[in-house]
Amino acid sequence: MIKIGIIGVGTVGEAVVKNLKKNKEIIKARAGKEIKVVKGVVRDLNKKRDINIPLTTDYKEVTQDPEIDIVVELMGGVESAYKVVKDALIHKKAVVTANKALLAYHRFELQKLASTPFGYEASVAGGIPIIKALRDGLSANDIIEIKGIINGTCNYILSEMKKGRDYQEVLKEAQKLGYAEANPTFDVGGYDAAHKLLILASIAYNIDAKPEDILIEGIENINLMDIEFAKEFGYEIKLLGIAKKIDNKIELRVHPTLIKKEEMIAKVDGVMNAVSVIGDTVGETMYYGPGAGGDATASAVISDIIEIARGIKAPMLGFKLPLNKNYKLKEIDEIESKYYLRIATKDKVGVLNKITNVLAKHNISIETFLQKPKDNFAKLLFSTHKCKEKEIKKAIKEIEAFDFVLKPINYIRIEE
Amino acid sequence: MIKIGIIGVGTVGEAVVKNLKKNKEIIKARAGKEIKVVKGVVRDLNKKRDINIPLTTDYKEVTQDPEIDIVVELMGGVESAYKVVKDALIHKKAVVTANKALLAYHRFELQKLASTPFGYEASVAGGIPIIKALRDGLSANDIIEIKGIINGTCNYILSEMKKGRDYQEVLKEAQKLGYAEANPTFDVGGYDAAHKLLILASIAYNIDAKPEDILIEGIENINLMDIEFAKEFGYEIKLLGIAKKIDNKIELRVHPTLIKKEEMIAKVDGVMNAVSVIGDTVGETMYYGPGAGGDATASAVISDIIEIARGIKAPMLGFKLPLNKNYKLKEIDEIESKYYLRIATKDKVGVLNKITNVLAKHNISIETFLQKPKDNFAKLLFSTHKCKEKEIKKAIKEIEAFDFVLKPINYIRIEE
Repeated sequence: MIKIGIIGVGTVGEAVVKNLKKNKEIIKARAGKEIKVVKGVVRDLNKKRDINIPLTTDYKEVTQDPEIDIVVELMGGVESAYKVVKDALIHKKAVVTANKALLAYHRFELQKLASTPFGYEASVAGGIPIIKALRDGLSANDIIEIKGIINGTCNYILSEMKKGRDYQEVLKEAQKLGYAEANPTFDVGGYDAAHKLLILASIAYNIDAKPEDILIEGIENINLMDIEFAKEFGYEIKLLGIAKKIDNKIELRVHPTLIKKEEMIAKVDGVMNAVSVIGDTVGETMYYGPGAGGDATASAVISDIIEIARGIKAPMLGFKLPLNKNYKLKEIDEIESKYYLRIATKDKVGVLNKITNVLAKHNISIETFLQKPKDNFAKLLFSTHKCKEKEIKKAIKEIEAFDFVLKPINYIRIEE
Repeated sequence: MIKIGIIGVGTVGEAVVKNLKKNKEIIKARAGKEIKVVKGVVRDLNKKRDINIPLTTDYKEVTQDPEIDIVVELMGGVESAYKVVKDALIHKKAVVTANKALLAYHRFELQKLASTPFGYEASVAGGIPIIKALRDGLSANDIIEIKGIINGTCNYILSEMKKGRDYQEVLKEAQKLGYAEANPTFDVGGYDAAHKLLILASIAYNIDAKPEDILIEGIENINLMDIEFAKEFGYEIKLLGIAKKIDNKIELRVHPTLIKKEEMIAKVDGVMNAVSVIGDTVGETMYYGPGAGGDATASAVISDIIEIARGIKAPMLGFKLPLNKNYKLKEIDEIESKYYLRIATKDKVGVLNKITNVLAKHNISIETFLQKPKDNFAKLLFSTHKCKEKEIKKAIKEIEAFDFVLKPINYIRIEE
C-alpha cells in the first residue's frame, strides 16, 4: 500500500481524495498497489468539507511522518510551499505538486534536492499530460518550438470577443463563471501563462529562467478593431506562451499573438488549453484539453501518484545528465517578430507619409496596410515583416510623439 | 551504454539510426546513457542503404546476442514477427516494436511473456505519444470513450472529397503521394485503424479482442452526396476508431462517422492523426500529430528506447494487477447508433410511405429527412434516432427488396 499526505485540502485536494476513492479498483490495478490518503494538512480544522480524512494544521505531521510515502503539495504560494516541499524531500518523501509558481521559481533547486520521485504534471495545462509528453513521449526530439494556449481565462475572453463582445463585458462574465479571479491581472496579464511556459521550457531546453527574465504581455489592450483586422486577414488572436530555439539562444515570451486560422492551435476556443510542440524528428504534435478545474487537475495529480506507486522514477526535468548545449536566454530586445500595429490618428494630410518614414528609418518594412475611416479619426492598421523588438519599440515611441497620433499605439505580434 | 539491435532496416529502421545519431547528445542527456545501434537484421545484405551499421540476415544474431540490451522489431508481419519477438523476450531482451498487426493479435500473450520492458509507442498514431498518454498520463481515469482518426490515408481522402473531388480520383492521388498503398484495402477498408483501436482499447479496458471480433467498415462507399448532406447538417465525415464503455460491455468499432463540425477532432484534416479520449475525471483530452512517416515513427521508437535506457519498466498494457471488472466485448448486433441513410429510388408515388413503414416496423424513428430530385431518380436522405445495429440492418435489407429502390443503400453512423 502507498500512503499519501495532502498539504492543502481545497478544491483540488478534495477532488484528489474523491477520485482516488471513486476509481479505487482501476487505480489499484494500474498502480499495482492500493493508494490511501492518510492525512491532510489544512489551515482551519473546523471548516466543513465533503471528504473524510484525518486532518492536522501542522505540515510536519505529513512531511516527517515515517509512514507516509508521497507528499502531495496543493497549498499554493511560492516561498511557504518551497519550505514545505524541501522538508518533504529532506525526509525522503516522494513529492507531487500542482504548484506552477513554486516551480517557476525553484524547479532547478528542487531537482538538485530530489533523490526521490518528483511529479508536477498538474502544474501546466491542468488535465493535459503535457509534462509527460515532453519528458517521455517526445524525448527523441530536439525541440524546435513550443506554442501553448496555457491560460483558459484569456482564451475564453478572446473567443467571446470574436463574437463582437467587448473586453470588459466578457471579463465580468468570466469572473461570474469562475473562469477569472476578482483581481484578474495574474491571468489576463500573462503571468500565469509565463509560469507554465518556464516549466515547459526547462524540459525542452534544460534552461533556467525566472518570470522576471522574460517577455510577458497580457490581453488587456486587445479591442474589437484588432479582432476585425484578424478576421480580415485570416488570423486568430490567442494569448500564447512561446519557447523557441534559434541557434544557441532560447526565446521565451508570453503575449497576444496573431496566428493563421488554419493552424490547429488556432482552432482551440473557449476555456480549453492546448500545447503545440514542434520537434525536429516528429514534426508538430498538439495536446488539447481542460487546463483547470478540480477534477481535471486531480487527474494529473493522481497520474503522478500512480507513476510513483509503480516504482518509476523519471528524471524530474527530463534530463539524467547535464546537457552540454549551454543554451542562453535570448535578450528581450533581440527577439524578432512580425508585428501588427493599430494607430489612431487625426484625419490630416501627410500622416501616412510621416509614419512610414519612421518605420523605414528603423528598417521595418510593411507587409499589409489597411486604412479605415472611423468617426472623427483615422484608423491605420499595418502588418510588418520581421523586425527586432528594440526597433519596433523605438519606432512606436517616435510615432506616438507625433501630435496627430491618438495614443497609445496598439500592437500584436504575428507568428507564422 | 545501451546496445540496440534492429530487426528490419527499412524506412523506419533507417530513420531510427539517423535520428539517434543526429540527436546523440540530447538523447544521451535525457536517457542517462549513450545509445548505440550495434547490429541490423536485413533480408538482402547487398541492398544499398543510407546508413552504416553491421548487418546480418540471421535474426538470432540479435535476439540471442548477450551484448544486446534492446531488440527493436521493425520487420512487420504477424506470425514471423511473433516468433522473433518471443525469441528476444525468452533471451531477456527488452523489446521495442512499431508492429500494430503483431500487437492486434498477440499483445496479451506477449505481455505474459515479457519480464523485460516492452515498448510499442510507434504502433499507434505514429509520432503522437498516445500509448504513453493512455498508459501514464490518463491513468487516474476510468475511460469512457476513445475516438481516433488513426488512419491518415482515409483522413486525407475524406478531407479532399470535401472540396468536391471524387473518391477514385483522390485515392489515385493518395497513391501517387505515397499516402496509400497500391492495394489500398488495408487502409481504406478500416483494417489498419482496427489494429490500432484494439491496442488502445486494451490499455483503456484491459480487453482482449481480435480484429475478426469487431465491427470494421471502410470509406469505399462514401460519395459526394454524403459529403453534401454532412455540410448541410453541420457534420464532418471521418473514419473513426471508437472504443466505448457502456455498463460492463465494451464497444469496439471502426467506420466512417458523421460528427458535429464543432468537435475538436472534426477539425483534423489531411493526413494527420488525432485521438480524443474522454476520461471520467479529466473530461476530454485530444492528441494530434503525424500518424506515419519514417521520422515521426522513429520519434516514437526512440522514446521507448530512452524510457528503457532510463531504467523504467512501465506495465506493458498499463495494468500491474488484473482488473476485476470482467469487461466483455459488446456483440456487433447490439451496438446502438444514430444513422444517416442515403436511398436512391425511382420517382414514384408512395415510395416515402413504404420506406417509412419499414423503419417504423423496426422501431427506427427519423430525426431529419431531406429529399432532392436527382437526374432520373429521387435521392432520399434520412437521419435516425438511436437504434440497434441488427434493426437497421434488417430494415435496410427490407427496403432494398422494394423494386423501386436502386441498390445499394448507403449508410453512415452518427456520433454525437
